[in-house]
Amino acid sequence: MSELVGNVLVGQSGGPTAVINASVAGIITEALNHECIEEIYGTLNGVLGLLQEDLIDLASESQQQIRALRYTPGAALGTCRYKLKKQADFDRVLEVFKAHNIRYFFYIGGGDSQDTADKISKLAQAQGYELRVIGVPKTIDNDLPTTDHTPGYASTVKYLATTVREIACDNEAMGQGDLVSIVEVMGRTAGWLAAGTSLAKRRDHPHDPPHLILLPEIPFNQEKVLEDVRRVLKREKYCLIVVAEGLVDADGNYVAADATTDAFGHATLGGAGDALGEIIGAHIPGAKVRVAKPGLMQRCAAHAASKTDADEALLAGQAAVKAAIAGETDKMVTLIRGESDHYTVETGLVPLNEIANSVKKLPPEWVNEDGVSMNFQFLRYAQPLIQGEVVIPYDNGVPAFARLDKVRVDKVLPGYEV
Amino acid sequence: MSELVGNVLVGQSGGPTAVINASVAGIITEALNHECIEEIYGTLNGVLGLLQEDLIDLASESQQQIRALRYTPGAALGTCRYKLKKQADFDRVLEVFKAHNIRYFFYIGGGDSQDTADKISKLAQAQGYELRVIGVPKTIDNDLPTTDHTPGYASTVKYLATTVREIACDNEAMGQGDLVSIVEVMGRTAGWLAAGTSLAKRRDHPHDPPHLILLPEIPFNQEKVLEDVRRVLKREKYCLIVVAEGLVDADGNYVAADATTDAFGHATLGGAGDALGEIIGAHIPGAKVRVAKPGLMQRCAAHAASKTDADEALLAGQAAVKAAIAGETDKMVTLIRGESDHYTVETGLVPLNEIANSVKKLPPEWVNEDGVSMNFQFLRYAQPLIQGEVVIPYDNGVPAFARLDKVRVDKVLPGYEV
Repeated sequence: MSELVGNVLVGQSGGPTAVINASVAGIITEALNHECIEEIYGTLNGVLGLLQEDLIDLASESQQQIRALRYTPGAALGTCRYKLKKQADFDRVLEVFKAHNIRYFFYIGGGDSQDTADKISKLAQAQGYELRVIGVPKTIDNDLPTTDHTPGYASTVKYLATTVREIACDNEAMGQGDLVSIVEVMGRTAGWLAAGTSLAKRRDHPHDPPHLILLPEIPFNQEKVLEDVRRVLKREKYCLIVVAEGLVDADGNYVAADATTDAFGHATLGGAGDALGEIIGAHIPGAKVRVAKPGLMQRCAAHAASKTDADEALLAGQAAVKAAIAGETDKMVTLIRGESDHYTVETGLVPLNEIANSVKKLPPEWVNEDGVSMNFQFLRYAQPLIQGEVVIPYDNGVPAFARLDKVRVDKVLPGYEV
Repeated sequence: MSELVGNVLVGQSGGPTAVINASVAGIITEALNHECIEEIYGTLNGVLGLLQEDLIDLASESQQQIRALRYTPGAALGTCRYKLKKQADFDRVLEVFKAHNIRYFFYIGGGDSQDTADKISKLAQAQGYELRVIGVPKTIDNDLPTTDHTPGYASTVKYLATTVREIACDNEAMGQGDLVSIVEVMGRTAGWLAAGTSLAKRRDHPHDPPHLILLPEIPFNQEKVLEDVRRVLKREKYCLIVVAEGLVDADGNYVAADATTDAFGHATLGGAGDALGEIIGAHIPGAKVRVAKPGLMQRCAAHAASKTDADEALLAGQAAVKAAIAGETDKMVTLIRGESDHYTVETGLVPLNEIANSVKKLPPEWVNEDGVSMNFQFLRYAQPLIQGEVVIPYDNGVPAFARLDKVRVDKVLPGYEV
């Protein structure tokens, strides 16, 4: 394989995570090791920057800032949910790549983003433009196939499990057999995050909170849930429930939207937690219901991130560059768990087209028969991922995060209408 | 003053905070220094334990657990919102005190709790039972008079300011001049917590988030808020709003309850954040609204507590014991800020009856003229309080908190119907 000399372009896409910027840091630091790489650019707001030629010079950022990316939440390059659709869009992207001699393209994102990367790669190939495209996985939802887990997932789990343990201390003090505490977590179709809160339980303490985990995979049965709540309240001072935002009833309707359609006829923003709280309040006399909805907080809580997760996000970025330098293209980096009991991880590669339109589901056999708790198989899977704490610097009492200078790369092409 | 030999009783009351247990630790460790103190008891669930003679032996807890109280949220002794009402209740409390030779009573709580402590103290005096009663302040609301600030406040502020800064990273990545992000914080009547989130701004960066702080002290004016949001969205990629749960309109009605009364006619649990989100969604076309409601999370987030706050909570507990040993009674410990520019704090004492039925308001002159941001006077007040991070041990990736053995003290009295 001949050495490919040219420039790197990094992009981020989809919803941010607490560690998506660690992958950017991994890509930049690894790219600096290779002489065939001349410039290291970033595209602002994912494909939008590709279309509008909004590129920044990442090599001109201070080393301090690049290091700070390892613990900075959000997506430092900006992101978007825009989807490349028409052929003109793809042609434009290639034009931008050629104009800036981009030969290495690293795209950090979820399933849709990997699909976009795949299409760009295929188009370059068809046009005979030598380009190496490697995807880097990210999503708090953990629903990407082919990888053992996805960077971003574990940090949200660690934050939510910490939150559950803290709320449990509060509830234990306040409850008198009447307190129902609900935490609504993200997860529209897959219960990975809700399931992850079971890590708040101590080993061999199945009655520890969360007492009930309501997964989107298991249809909401009002009678059963009310019975479960009553049973827990007989045993404990309080009942702590974790509910996935995507909880659906037996007909597949969102519990959230159903219960809280407002006077204007549109679904309120309240969500599954509020809806569940209303149901419990209406059916269990004397119940004191409290609902917490961390919302965006859970995907950017860098101050409570998992060190394992942050390190793996960095590793995935580095692995992407190494693979591209070695001649790989049209692949996504995966995380592969070692076989031994002691948790180890190494990276692998899978073709990008194996990612698109496929979702990794929470294995039903990891849910206990009660339908509201996870068994040892899930714990064995998830426990190693949340180990270690990321140390972040504080400035005047508040975390100090990276702020990139974002020095623009001169545009050389005419404008493009998005 | 003669030495008073006897037992200590500690109680906690009202809503927990991230550092209320640090005050318990302060009381226990200081009490152990004094030979006139024989036993150190705790009352379970505040006054409920007093009435029901549910006492535990705190001296029998391991030193490890007492140390762990310094970073354990919730109220380790349990708490309650029960209010002593009838004379029989007060008589019973005195009976329990006498039966267990309680000569020192330390009550950690807010205004109502200090009022209760005052009444118990007065009754003992009237009955000629020698008892020293010292209150220790706590509340995340920071609305207790006579003390510069209240233990518990700063940790919630630090957590919320951290959260605002993290959400800002997320919003900065996702927003395209259309994103409105709302964080609903506690505060039914006073805006201390909402105001505290202004510490997320960097010094001399008034345009940093939170862009709008909606205080309960300033009546909600829908037209002005919508105008403010539009203005911010023209300037920034997103508009981050912090709203106090107790936001009211010009007629004094809660914005929350009004806007989200559900189909059954009762107010939903959604609150001010959801109500505000619906108003903005309905009046600003194209706005993408996201609401986070940390709820109980904000008063128990020990993993993000302020070290200054935790240290001061410990100090207040120690000061209570020292004061009682020195012969003081019927007083509450206060925190007094030093005059110098360099922040220092010492403790003082005020009569318990100066606390009851009085509330410390957020000074209106600390709010900027725009009505949605705080000026340098507030920053000068609040900034020192959130300095320093509490280091907590982790167990398998999740914070390891204290778990008291709660060895019961033998009951010697007949039962009492609460």
